[in-house]
Amino acid sequence: MTITVWNEFRHEPASDAIRSIYPNGIHGAIAEHLSKYDGFSVRTATLDEPEHGLTQDVLDATDVLIWWSHIAHGDVTDAVAERVQTAVQQGMGLIVLHSSHFSKPFKRLMGTTCGLSWREDDKHERLWVVDPTHPIAAGIDRYIEVPEAEMYGEFFDVPTPDELVFISWFAGGEVFRSGMVWKRGYGKIFYFRPGHETYPIYHQPQIVQVIANACRYLNNDRATVTGIGSCPHQTESPESLRVRA
Amino acid sequence: MTITVWNEFRHEPASDAIRSIYPNGIHGAIAEHLSKYDGFSVRTATLDEPEHGLTQDVLDATDVLIWWSHIAHGDVTDAVAERVQTAVQQGMGLIVLHSSHFSKPFKRLMGTTCGLSWREDDKHERLWVVDPTHPIAAGIDRYIEVPEAEMYGEFFDVPTPDELVFISWFAGGEVFRSGMVWKRGYGKIFYFRPGHETYPIYHQPQIVQVIANACRYLNNDRATVTGIGSCPHQTESPESLRVRA
Amino acid sequence: MTITVWNEFRHEPASDAIRSIYPNGIHGAIAEHLSKYDGFSVRTATLDEPEHGLTQDVLDATDVLIWWSHIAHGDVTDAVAERVQTAVQQGMGLIVLHSSHFSKPFKRLMGTTCGLSWREDDKHERLWVVDPTHPIAAGIDRYIEVPEAEMYGEFFDVPTPDELVFISWFAGGEVFRSGMVWKRGYGKIFYFRPGHETYPIYHQPQIVQVIANACRYLNNDRATVTGIGSCPHQTESPESLRVRA
Amino acid sequence: MTITVWNEFRHEPASDAIRSIYPNGIHGAIAEHLSKYDGFSVRTATLDEPEHGLTQDVLDATDVLIWWSHIAHGDVTDAVAERVQTAVQQGMGLIVLHSSHFSKPFKRLMGTTCGLSWREDDKHERLWVVDPTHPIAAGIDRYIEVPEAEMYGEFFDVPTPDELVFISWFAGGEVFRSGMVWKRGYGKIFYFRPGHETYPIYHQPQIVQVIANACRYLNNDRATVTGIGSCPHQTESPESLRVRA
Repeated sequence: MTITVWNEFRHEPASDAIRSIYPNGIHGAIAEHLSKYDGFSVRTATLDEPEHGLTQDVLDATDVLIWWSHIAHGDVTDAVAERVQTAVQQGMGLIVLHSSHFSKPFKRLMGTTCGLSWREDDKHERLWVVDPTHPIAAGIDRYIEVPEAEMYGEFFDVPTPDELVFISWFAGGEVFRSGMVWKRGYGKIFYFRPGHETYPIYHQPQIVQVIANACRYLNNDRATVTGIGSCPHQTESPESLRVRA
Repeated sequence: MTITVWNEFRHEPASDAIRSIYPNGIHGAIAEHLSKYDGFSVRTATLDEPEHGLTQDVLDATDVLIWWSHIAHGDVTDAVAERVQTAVQQGMGLIVLHSSHFSKPFKRLMGTTCGLSWREDDKHERLWVVDPTHPIAAGIDRYIEVPEAEMYGEFFDVPTPDELVFISWFAGGEVFRSGMVWKRGYGKIFYFRPGHETYPIYHQPQIVQVIANACRYLNNDRATVTGIGSCPHQTESPESLRVRA
Repeated sequence: MTITVWNEFRHEPASDAIRSIYPNGIHGAIAEHLSKYDGFSVRTATLDEPEHGLTQDVLDATDVLIWWSHIAHGDVTDAVAERVQTAVQQGMGLIVLHSSHFSKPFKRLMGTTCGLSWREDDKHERLWVVDPTHPIAAGIDRYIEVPEAEMYGEFFDVPTPDELVFISWFAGGEVFRSGMVWKRGYGKIFYFRPGHETYPIYHQPQIVQVIANACRYLNNDRATVTGIGSCPHQTESPESLRVRA
Repeated sequence: MTITVWNEFRHEPASDAIRSIYPNGIHGAIAEHLSKYDGFSVRTATLDEPEHGLTQDVLDATDVLIWWSHIAHGDVTDAVAERVQTAVQQGMGLIVLHSSHFSKPFKRLMGTTCGLSWREDDKHERLWVVDPTHPIAAGIDRYIEVPEAEMYGEFFDVPTPDELVFISWFAGGEVFRSGMVWKRGYGKIFYFRPGHETYPIYHQPQIVQVIANACRYLNNDRATVTGIGSCPHQTESPESLRVRA
């Protein structure tokens, strides 16, 4: 399975504090951790590469794309956002992390505003498993505790998920649907909330485990079915074909 | 409740046969039938009016928008398509009829390709109620029979619906999920399959009944909640507010 | 609309503390509050009445049944539990409160164990609205705060709900899916978590408002459709009927 | 993976015609076909064995149970029906075939009447794939055609499925939701419609393929989580545990 980890990569060069947590960028950290899993071939791409590093060839060769963006959603071109949307419709998995709830590809795939409430408050978060046999929660006990986290609160404006896996508790008093799966065409999307740039969340083993589980769950072994999005004209009915057979 | 019936209105002026079925256009026929329902205030709008007849003022005053388009999806401007999407997110109901499955507003709200299979074959269709107590099926017996209809077949590439109300049977051998509801933000969308321009389907009483039922079901009496799509910064946590109270 | 409030009514006679909160029983308190709503005709029934006060005549005349039980689930006869299940299948609404998650009718309708985690800890609970335009949340702001509450935690072993309306936050660190709707046959069920017998929760106006909203939402104005649960033999096909017509 | 194929086995001994199609019983035919799949260890059990062949030991060792019953639903003891329900809640997969929609275990797990319409009419059925990347539809093209089949029609009184995979078209004019998945506790259930005893449907390769796919999909590799259905008393809160840590 080929995984592409994409990051806008704007915080890390601009901040010593953030760079000290993620010296190779958030994408570098996630890629490094995922590379240790059997069968995972991991590469990275970032916003400032040509075509944001997401050429058609790259997407065609990607089974699961992981996306992290925050302050530069608007710098992603509409062409690349549409290309990612189309790749998902054709079967590519997409993992949308944390602040990427407001990214162009996610908003295009959801159809909603994807708004939420938030507060930076350096307090802890606890992600509860509400679907204990879901493959994305494999190896996780009743909950994951994140020592320091930005708060995201409801109402999170997304469509009813096909599957709800995690709900977060925040020390400040909020809850949030933190792990959700949607199907779109032949592909699946997993939104996973944790991961503010100022905390070492993507080094936390349970968080890495969930992302790895999601890569496996979203990977669609079946060959990409061509023709999605076309409106095939069926010149003969099954009933007439049957009579002739 | 204010209902706006929108039609691209391109077939009717161009074809005597179609005009003989819908002398005032498909929008005119639907508007006329719906006007007979208590509490329905109905108006129309068409593609070739300025801003397609869908100015911000019109949408702000619309509780439920009914949409019919077929050969001119691409002539709808992106600005108006986005305006309709935003209105739904803010609470407006949207009824998407027949070939409008490929319209810009519907595709933006679904996030999928909205593709399907089709065949013009002048045969009958039977829409089965699979959720008999759903308000949209009120007054409908086990099924609706449409004497002549274009065929639409699966796979219909839309997200899992929040509610599945009708499934169609076609004489040629196909099935189709013909009545589905999705929530998007504060609004609801109802896709309803029947309605090819060459058949008098929108004069059929049961079809009109379903559309009227859907208008009532999608009408959101609650005032539009402002702020949808923003990401409100919660400077104080519920826990700190509680301590201070 | 006729509402029947059912209570096992075992705590109140046995405890001065509980009786001081609910002098007329939990059923009496809920009935008194609901009686103030327009169009609500409210009566009560309790475990120790003949047939637990739930004869076939009572259920036939009930639009929405509200259920509270805790220490005496096992004293409800299987016959009455089945009668309630059948009434829901035929269109009666059922509101299942708090500890009634372990009641016989609810378990029969869910098919799961309906287990959960719990702790009595006298701390506060905050119910967040995660579906802000849902009729059951009408009139409720972003959340409801309950000053003192028993804790219920995930995993709550129930089927995927048709609609998820509330998620609870607990001071001790847990979350819980606190307001959920399921369809079963022609009826709907609403599970609503708040309501431990040692706290005056059913006197809290927002809690009463949610229960009243749920009564309206679960009320099925359509006449009870007979024949649910039978397997009607269709001796003639729609196709043959059509040819003959 | 260990698969147990259960059959009431009443038609085959009583009818030469049926026995000529299924000389070793429906269970024998399904078991023989499934045995050819890698990693499948298949055994059978029937109604007239002691405890219907479904002792606790047998269920404990079963990953996926396949169930076929028709005229003898009532001969299954409540004790065994409850044992099967409990096994599913604890993680066992259950495939419910054709007329088993009215079996005790299925009705207990659904909570609905599981009624439907039906007609024996020797006409063909066409099962359409409406979720083309679902693992249960792997290897199936757009549809499966069954040359002769009993008709089952809507309304099928079951809860909203977690996943809808197949919808059937019948020559007589009906449709039916023919392939559906529900989660119950730690287990999954797949209802699959085809399979009347008077037709060689379980010898049809595509039907066998779907059943084999479903065995893989329902198999829960994770160890059975004990304690499902209990209500664990959490004497310490996560917050207090955290402070002590």
